[in-house]
Amino acid sequence: MKIAIYGYGNLGKGVECAVKYNKDTELVGVFTRRATESVKTVSGAPVYSAADIDKFKDEIDVLVICGGSATDLPKMTPELASRFNVVDSFDTHAEIASHFENTDGASRQGGKLALISAGWDPGLFSIARVYASAALPEGSDYTFWGRGISQGHSDAIRRIDGVVDARQYTVPIDAALNAVKSGECPILGVRDKHKRECYVVAEDGADLSRIEREIKEMPNYFADYDTTVTFISLDELRREHCGIPHGGSVIRNGKTGIAAENTHTVEFSLRLDSNPEFTGSVLLAYARAVYRMHERGRTGCVTVLDVAPADLSIYSADDLRRHML
Amino acid sequence: MKIAIYGYGNLGKGVECAVKYNKDTELVGVFTRRATESVKTVSGAPVYSAADIDKFKDEIDVLVICGGSATDLPKMTPELASRFNVVDSFDTHAEIASHFENTDGASRQGGKLALISAGWDPGLFSIARVYASAALPEGSDYTFWGRGISQGHSDAIRRIDGVVDARQYTVPIDAALNAVKSGECPILGVRDKHKRECYVVAEDGADLSRIEREIKEMPNYFADYDTTVTFISLDELRREHCGIPHGGSVIRNGKTGIAAENTHTVEFSLRLDSNPEFTGSVLLAYARAVYRMHERGRTGCVTVLDVAPADLSIYSADDLRRHML
Repeated sequence: MKIAIYGYGNLGKGVECAVKYNKDTELVGVFTRRATESVKTVSGAPVYSAADIDKFKDEIDVLVICGGSATDLPKMTPELASRFNVVDSFDTHAEIASHFENTDGASRQGGKLALISAGWDPGLFSIARVYASAALPEGSDYTFWGRGISQGHSDAIRRIDGVVDARQYTVPIDAALNAVKSGECPILGVRDKHKRECYVVAEDGADLSRIEREIKEMPNYFADYDTTVTFISLDELRREHCGIPHGGSVIRNGKTGIAAENTHTVEFSLRLDSNPEFTGSVLLAYARAVYRMHERGRTGCVTVLDVAPADLSIYSADDLRRHML
Repeated sequence: MKIAIYGYGNLGKGVECAVKYNKDTELVGVFTRRATESVKTVSGAPVYSAADIDKFKDEIDVLVICGGSATDLPKMTPELASRFNVVDSFDTHAEIASHFENTDGASRQGGKLALISAGWDPGLFSIARVYASAALPEGSDYTFWGRGISQGHSDAIRRIDGVVDARQYTVPIDAALNAVKSGECPILGVRDKHKRECYVVAEDGADLSRIEREIKEMPNYFADYDTTVTFISLDELRREHCGIPHGGSVIRNGKTGIAAENTHTVEFSLRLDSNPEFTGSVLLAYARAVYRMHERGRTGCVTVLDVAPADLSIYSADDLRRHML
């Protein structure tokens, strides 16, 4: 299976690293919109200009598109889907339906298969929600995120006057998490589920109390949460907060029995040292599924919910039945 | 979707209860090998003789076969698969491959679809293993069972001379579970992972120390585990140990990164008040998938690994994309 990576940030690097662990995949190269000579790949994979992608049409089985969800993917994925089998990680939940429509037409026209919104949320968490609600139709779902770095919230802090750099951790609140894990179905507000921890490097002489106030009062991002702000040195930020960890849990508590007398808890959890590397690894597994499903004649747009588990695995159906079932 | 239940023990009752929570399903009836007048269903569903099943050929979309794995299912499933779409919960891991072969031919011949080995292990746990190993090809898998009732071990104790009744709980050992959850990949022997707690009602005047010794020394069942034996009254057994709880965790710890420098933990856990009711509910979700896949022309034998999550859900593909993805 010949893979190419389109867009080379942290996620593209994650996909590149994942190729190493998937013996049935081969990396054709990395395609970038930057000057090719300015890009050095982690594994030494060749770098090509994104403008030349069509020259590689016959050499690429699946193109993994590693752009951002805000502006890149809504254009890139439908544009490339007519000529390539593609996988993306589009994660703006509210716009998935329209992204699906836009991509589906292009893929169908070109006789190609596209899989959008792979990764872990959307992705493995979505799958966990569907399995749990199918197994327990009567029940309540909870999703907790973290402890992990939110790139969006970190960026929002960096835009404040007097801030040099910042990292924001989204942290689930233990009391809420433990109540849900114990089988209770509490009604939880935004503030009950997560808190926000900010580590901020300020300019020399900056007004720290103003910065702290601006963070805590920022609408949507922080105002609805209990937020802590800790000022640290740039050295400490680089030393203690250089990773991109994340994770979380999808938990469903549901009832069965003729009088709903029995309670069950289904939980799917992730603890990730590196969000982009894990996400990249998931994208590569879905590239395998796209390749196989397209070989069987499937075209158009699909999501992780349309893919059978067996299609993700390097093992044969018979091996899976013997060793994994 | 018209469902029938073939075999009416605890699992059959679990499927019957699940129909109540799945608005797109209708229960045609329960088929039993016992005298029909001796069987009273929980929901008042009609009871028919198993011998009459072929008279209902055109009224049943999917037959959920609720027999035992030791002797019932290896015969029943291949026998019924030529005339009905079927789902079973065959759980003898070592014989799944041959059960698959036996059923596949019959289903194919009859133009029907069979799904074998649904439930939670095999079933949702198998799926968790496949997703986790696809996302993290480099890593180690761990499955812990319990705390829960093992029917097989309880039965083994009951066969000992002087025992009136017994319940055996399989209990994961915290130290092992916590090590794995923290991301370590320990090498664990049988005794390191689980212990066995036995609650035993003995006959008046029975030799308790002999019974305890016979339990603890029983090969395969107990000899390889740390086992505790507690003698209790029949009253206490009925009061404190009347449920059929179970559960467990599938955990995979894996590495990513160009030098395998990052660690990730993927965990899927269940805590079930009633093992047969939860399993029955999962079987019904797979009956829905079998119905849909057969409508699309699929025949032969499949397992949970061949079913896309969307096919299990009562919601439409569009609803799933909008609300669950």
